[in-house]
Amino acid sequence: MDAGIIAVGSELLTPFRVDTNSLLITERLNAIGIDVRFKAVVGDDVGELTTIVGQAMGTLDLVVCTGGLGPTEDDVTRDAVARALEAPLEIDEEIAERIRERFARRGLQMAEINRRQAMVPRGAIVLQNPNGTAPGLVLKRGRTTIVLLPGPPREMTPMLDRLLSERFARESGGRGLFRRVLRITGRTESDVDSRAQPIYSRWRDQAVPITTTILAVMGQIELHLTAAAASRAQADQALDAAVVELQGAIGSAVYSVDGRPLEAVVGALLRDVEWRVAVAESCSGGLLASRLTDVPGSSDYVERGVVCYSNRSKVELVGVPPHLIDQYGAVSEPVARALAEGIRARSGVNVGMGITGIAGPGGGTPEKPVGTVAVAVVADGGEAVRTFQFIGGREQVKFQSTQAALNMLRLMLLERKG
Amino acid sequence: MDAGIIAVGSELLTPFRVDTNSLLITERLNAIGIDVRFKAVVGDDVGELTTIVGQAMGTLDLVVCTGGLGPTEDDVTRDAVARALEAPLEIDEEIAERIRERFARRGLQMAEINRRQAMVPRGAIVLQNPNGTAPGLVLKRGRTTIVLLPGPPREMTPMLDRLLSERFARESGGRGLFRRVLRITGRTESDVDSRAQPIYSRWRDQAVPITTTILAVMGQIELHLTAAAASRAQADQALDAAVVELQGAIGSAVYSVDGRPLEAVVGALLRDVEWRVAVAESCSGGLLASRLTDVPGSSDYVERGVVCYSNRSKVELVGVPPHLIDQYGAVSEPVARALAEGIRARSGVNVGMGITGIAGPGGGTPEKPVGTVAVAVVADGGEAVRTFQFIGGREQVKFQSTQAALNMLRLMLLERKG
Repeated sequence: MDAGIIAVGSELLTPFRVDTNSLLITERLNAIGIDVRFKAVVGDDVGELTTIVGQAMGTLDLVVCTGGLGPTEDDVTRDAVARALEAPLEIDEEIAERIRERFARRGLQMAEINRRQAMVPRGAIVLQNPNGTAPGLVLKRGRTTIVLLPGPPREMTPMLDRLLSERFARESGGRGLFRRVLRITGRTESDVDSRAQPIYSRWRDQAVPITTTILAVMGQIELHLTAAAASRAQADQALDAAVVELQGAIGSAVYSVDGRPLEAVVGALLRDVEWRVAVAESCSGGLLASRLTDVPGSSDYVERGVVCYSNRSKVELVGVPPHLIDQYGAVSEPVARALAEGIRARSGVNVGMGITGIAGPGGGTPEKPVGTVAVAVVADGGEAVRTFQFIGGREQVKFQSTQAALNMLRLMLLERKG
Repeated sequence: MDAGIIAVGSELLTPFRVDTNSLLITERLNAIGIDVRFKAVVGDDVGELTTIVGQAMGTLDLVVCTGGLGPTEDDVTRDAVARALEAPLEIDEEIAERIRERFARRGLQMAEINRRQAMVPRGAIVLQNPNGTAPGLVLKRGRTTIVLLPGPPREMTPMLDRLLSERFARESGGRGLFRRVLRITGRTESDVDSRAQPIYSRWRDQAVPITTTILAVMGQIELHLTAAAASRAQADQALDAAVVELQGAIGSAVYSVDGRPLEAVVGALLRDVEWRVAVAESCSGGLLASRLTDVPGSSDYVERGVVCYSNRSKVELVGVPPHLIDQYGAVSEPVARALAEGIRARSGVNVGMGITGIAGPGGGTPEKPVGTVAVAVVADGGEAVRTFQFIGGREQVKFQSTQAALNMLRLMLLERKG
């Protein structure tokens, strides 16, 4: 089966907002073998939306529209679909009653405007909305089923999940598109591709074909594998073999094959070896601590962090010897090492991490241009100290600094695990 | 003039990637009065793309396609547009020569595959690409101009800017869509709307009409104002008056009218009063320090931060009296206050901030459920301490904690400035 997604809302046609609902919808459709062939964004304009819906009908098996089901004049999805399908809009008293009750439960009277939300194109099936007033609607014309869902994710998601499991999952008979994402850090895109391409190019024509896309994102490379298979078990077998083969070619630079971000991978390794960590950051400004503590349960292994932006705080909070700063400069490997060792000693944990660099846009010099970052990881029985030259703006340099630090710790922990 | 944007690439139809090129394209088109009416995403499929291009031709003044101009078989934009416009593809020897030179400059020979990039639909105007091998193409049929640009932003952007300034800006005669975004925190969406709606509803029909959209995003509400005007000066006049009127109605909860994030607004206020800040964070895990230091030049006023995740670190790093933790719990207003006061005293700055709470998903109790966060700001001659109950997952609670803390500091600094 193939599908299209139409996101409705004028704010999605400004420079400030992208449609993100379609990512979740795609994931759910793919899981039951429905391929998304097309996405569109249309404003709150009944004419345009009628045209797009009309064009999509008949060419796709499934069209999912999100947004534009609210009670105001701006909300035109019901009207546009009624026009495109030439189905008259009629009031559904059952929906009106349910909206009335919803208001009454909060001691409010339903505003007259909300009656719009009870208008239904003739022949539509109504989907209950447990988390809001706008019901969903399902209509069918020829080969195409069109589904209208509200825009807010907490309303849309449960309605979509229920619809797919009740109406579509059976039809797919387990056939689906199954994906894996390999995340890689510490290598360039061309290096990864030159190792991976000879391998994945063979997969297109095998019994369970796998297509592969390589994507370079900030601080990491991703390989996206998609298998089209008759069942999850069949896909898993093919994808597991594919992942193993790629890991063999790329090596330990692959940090995740299950979607986990680097901080979660590092967190799990810290748990495995029962280590606690403390960090001392200068240019990354707290981002390393923040990423480590984004992981649920990280209070088990993150003991503390310090952000020593001023030289005085480097001395006071971590005990960096002032002569090191004088001799080598605040951005230097000896200072990074002193940050890592200092925070480790003061907090009594197994491993300390230190980052010092020039995030920019100011502060660069010919010897140490913007993007120069020294990173140190000091642990029981081992240490790693490196200097990097990152490119990009301030936030990119901050992120890449933390990515490099987390990766150095990951490699150290892998070695320790053996 | 109206426009549509078509982003080409199968990766944009997976659950992992959204098209973001269209945001920049929209901004540039809006700036010269071209309204974006429609966006689409299509995979690397010559048939689908031919259909979409065919549908867009004749209904819009301008269609901008990005992506799919590379040298590989996956890159089908040239072919699809040639088919949709029934213009035969022909080799352009001048382009081929330029690509050959580009390779030669790096000591490489042009691969045969790159000749694909020199194929041009008959009648197309070629746009030079200073940053890559894929040239852009412009074709016209009836009222519609179609522009093909490469996908990588650093190739696409200069080509788009040059095209718009040379071919379209003059036609617009200065007429454009001009936008403002008011950012608001510390109020609910319905509260903001009930104050703003009676005001902005009058603007639709004035000489320079302004349309307004209200959007609730995590930790803040945004009001987007769009004026359609004959010149920037005319738009500025109408928008300035509109912003003043909304600020009057909503008050100091409006923190930004120029797109600046809250941390930049707070940073500018700290500079104004010549104050330095230090922060002590528990549940926000370094995110407050990281947001403060996302602002260029923040090393002038951010002295240090500490992330005291363990109770021991709260005592050691900031001097929180252990009896406060015993008596009130680590998540409490007295401990938040002690964090703020402790970091302020130890670092010798003007203002200290403290955050302690339960980010979840674990750690909640009936009295202090997940999302309970105590925030304190202690400064020369004043302090503020509040407890919040946030909803959402771990990262949402972290973000909202820092948003609340920054806003408390902002309000204190505004008062001080008078």
